[in-house]
Amino acid sequence: MAKKTVRIGIVAASSPFERETADRVTALAAAHFPGNPPELVVHPNSFLRHGHFAGSDADRAAAFLAIANDPGFDALWFARGGYGACRIAGDVLARLEAPARAKTYLGYSDAGMLLAGLYTAGCAVAHGPMCQDIVREGGDAAIERALRWLVAQDADTLEPSLGDGRPAAAFNMITLSQILGTSLQPDLRNHVLMLEEVSEYMYKIDRTMHHVTANAGIRGVAGIRLGRCSDIIENDIDFGMTADEIVRDWCARSGIPFLGAADIGHDAANRIVPFGPP
Amino acid sequence: MAKKTVRIGIVAASSPFERETADRVTALAAAHFPGNPPELVVHPNSFLRHGHFAGSDADRAAAFLAIANDPGFDALWFARGGYGACRIAGDVLARLEAPARAKTYLGYSDAGMLLAGLYTAGCAVAHGPMCQDIVREGGDAAIERALRWLVAQDADTLEPSLGDGRPAAAFNMITLSQILGTSLQPDLRNHVLMLEEVSEYMYKIDRTMHHVTANAGIRGVAGIRLGRCSDIIENDIDFGMTADEIVRDWCARSGIPFLGAADIGHDAANRIVPFGPP
Repeated sequence: MAKKTVRIGIVAASSPFERETADRVTALAAAHFPGNPPELVVHPNSFLRHGHFAGSDADRAAAFLAIANDPGFDALWFARGGYGACRIAGDVLARLEAPARAKTYLGYSDAGMLLAGLYTAGCAVAHGPMCQDIVREGGDAAIERALRWLVAQDADTLEPSLGDGRPAAAFNMITLSQILGTSLQPDLRNHVLMLEEVSEYMYKIDRTMHHVTANAGIRGVAGIRLGRCSDIIENDIDFGMTADEIVRDWCARSGIPFLGAADIGHDAANRIVPFGPP
Repeated sequence: MAKKTVRIGIVAASSPFERETADRVTALAAAHFPGNPPELVVHPNSFLRHGHFAGSDADRAAAFLAIANDPGFDALWFARGGYGACRIAGDVLARLEAPARAKTYLGYSDAGMLLAGLYTAGCAVAHGPMCQDIVREGGDAAIERALRWLVAQDADTLEPSLGDGRPAAAFNMITLSQILGTSLQPDLRNHVLMLEEVSEYMYKIDRTMHHVTANAGIRGVAGIRLGRCSDIIENDIDFGMTADEIVRDWCARSGIPFLGAADIGHDAANRIVPFGPP
């Protein structure tokens, strides 16, 4: 009996995506799964441009819902981050239908705003590579990892600290900060919370960690693990603490256990963190 | 009978302050109020340097509490913003004594994190110029305005839309965003909320306004007024909306009345907004 072909819908919910990048991802999928490659379908709205965004809010919401609510797709894979997910979150979360809850969602960075809401809505979501990561140095490995997880849930694609039995979640720090105190904030009690950051000043990482650890809901997590904080913007005065020291400090102040490193980040090595129990 | 001399304690709760700047402010106070100048006392810790900060967290908290809890001071004036207020907020708010509640606090920007907590604690707080504003172009006017308000509560120092009978509050947008969902978030129901921003990307202003207007507590405000958004950082793609358009859009989406402009901002024209009822 022929294996079922896994169908993956790709949506740019934030910044614009390039057809050439999509073609590279599709070619890699065909090469990596000879015989029974997953079928990748990029929603055409993903190539639209509307200022900062991959089409207007209406275009992006329509693309998201067309894939999410279609029972013919097994997964919705975010094409890339950037900015814009929060502008469609209220609209798309209000219009999820039954097929949307029988589907897996994979992305990170700005897509985290939607992952958060989808998790609360009962969907299977995971923090991990997006199509755009193929342009990074060594990016093919990120795409292969994402596809092996989407197609076969390969255990070696997962963040290695997972599997201690506790539920998990992962976010870009500032993305999480920007949903605290809103209906997008998920219930992360007893979760291991993994955080990563990119292209920020160290003082903003400190300010964001104050925000995250001062939230009553976040104080109920099982602990925090720190992913990579890359491309830190140089400040005129050195901040005097590393990201690791900052996170340990705010964990100590807030009584949240610091659990060590997480193998996630804005890079090709970004491992996959499915939300919820293992 | 001689007029009582108003005593103002100056504290750097965030980034380091310079003695030369303090001297300029003191000289201006003497020149502006001949006969009975206010007495300005800069807490010596304000001149300390500890990396990014005006002394360690312990130094800054000690300076703040020395002024706040001293009945001999009528007001605590924040020397400047920058970053660091949230690192001492929990400590100082837990140690306020009775004299701290019989005192006026004036500042903005990063100091907003402390203003927020002080307001909740029942103190008289106001959003307005800080000592460091004297180095801005036309900065003398900002200092004179702050002093006229601290010394004599001159009505013409106030943001002109005040006085419609509704309580008010003012914040830097991102400062407010970074306390949402924490115990520092004040109850702003039925307040006119004035917001300003400086040195940010337009897409971050958009993301922040999503955050602010998505918060249930903020949705209870009487309305939002927009101050100046200055020194916007250029993006590789123009965002396509002005700050005014962004704020109107999020107000419309969230059902918060947009009330027009506010005469506040990171500039010498920054008018004073006392929190609470007029």
